[in-house]
Amino acid sequence: MNGYHDAKDAYLKRMSRIEGQVRGLTKMIESDKYCIDVLTQISAVNKALEAVALGLLDEHLKHCVADAVAEGGGMADEKISEASAAIARLVRS
Amino acid sequence: MNGYHDAKDAYLKRMSRIEGQVRGLTKMIESDKYCIDVLTQISAVNKALEAVALGLLDEHLKHCVADAVAEGGGMADEKISEASAAIARLVRS
Amino acid sequence: MNGYHDAKDAYLKRMSRIEGQVRGLTKMIESDKYCIDVLTQISAVNKALEAVALGLLDEHLKHCVADAVAEGGGMADEKISEASAAIARLVRS
Amino acid sequence: MNGYHDAKDAYLKRMSRIEGQVRGLTKMIESDKYCIDVLTQISAVNKALEAVALGLLDEHLKHCVADAVAEGGGMADEKISEASAAIARLVRS
Repeated sequence: MNGYHDAKDAYLKRMSRIEGQVRGLTKMIESDKYCIDVLTQISAVNKALEAVALGLLDEHLKHCVADAVAEGGGMADEKISEASAAIARLVRS
Repeated sequence: MNGYHDAKDAYLKRMSRIEGQVRGLTKMIESDKYCIDVLTQISAVNKALEAVALGLLDEHLKHCVADAVAEGGGMADEKISEASAAIARLVRS
Repeated sequence: MNGYHDAKDAYLKRMSRIEGQVRGLTKMIESDKYCIDVLTQISAVNKALEAVALGLLDEHLKHCVADAVAEGGGMADEKISEASAAIARLVRS
Repeated sequence: MNGYHDAKDAYLKRMSRIEGQVRGLTKMIESDKYCIDVLTQISAVNKALEAVALGLLDEHLKHCVADAVAEGGGMADEKISEASAAIARLVRS
């Protein structure tokens, strides 16, 4: 199971929009669009992917991590370290 | 014309790989993959798009901006301000 | 109370190093150092501050958020939303 | 010489404000302020440093890089590659 299960349809809708944006990007390059316009579109896709990531992370903390903490046992710290590593990758990408 | 003209095929190849990565992301969500694995993949796509953006920006500076400077006239400063605004969007996205 | 209490001395040591780096940055500008060298130093300070932020966030999740979850009651979700908002600010800064 | 020479006083003023913000950060940790408030302040410092970096970069392109292009010779491409590398460090930090 995962933390985003209840919102899965909403995430799939957002991903389908992002897939369209990325295909749009390819078409911009194919048709020799101006560099700056391509860069603007890349920033937009990055922002959209980042928003998906921040949403998934929030669900992950609220469900997977919170469940591990509530269950007690040694899993909670491990789950949080794993989440922190994912946050570090996002901050640095 | 644009600055990435000579490397267009290489950029299209990279975009086609990125399109595949984004479709892969959608499939991960569809098949309920673990949140952290989805986040890792999003970071990878962001890095790949960022690399395309940095490449395009370098070509833009080397061709479009350098040409505007070499031609003289008032266009150079305007071109550089436009590039700086695109860099700011990348840094903040 | 806060989540970084046990590691406070280590964080203060890192902050004192960062204060030195920032004063060094000011001195670079005062003595007209080359733009690119100043930019390199800014990237280094940003990375150092980011590392402090990621450390504090990890402690926050492991102590403040985990405590709120373990206590039960309505606070856990609120604490996680607050952490998610802080993560979003870091990702975007 | 460098590209930010004419705006040096303004940059020094901004740096002195940033030094104050960083000392404020240290004091927040010293006095055990709440993790999330420390994180918010770190994001603010990062944004302020980023704004300085983007300003310096714009001056660098408008003066150092533009001068190298205008002079002709082989230096322009090298200068732009150097600027692109600095931009990549900023985007990734």
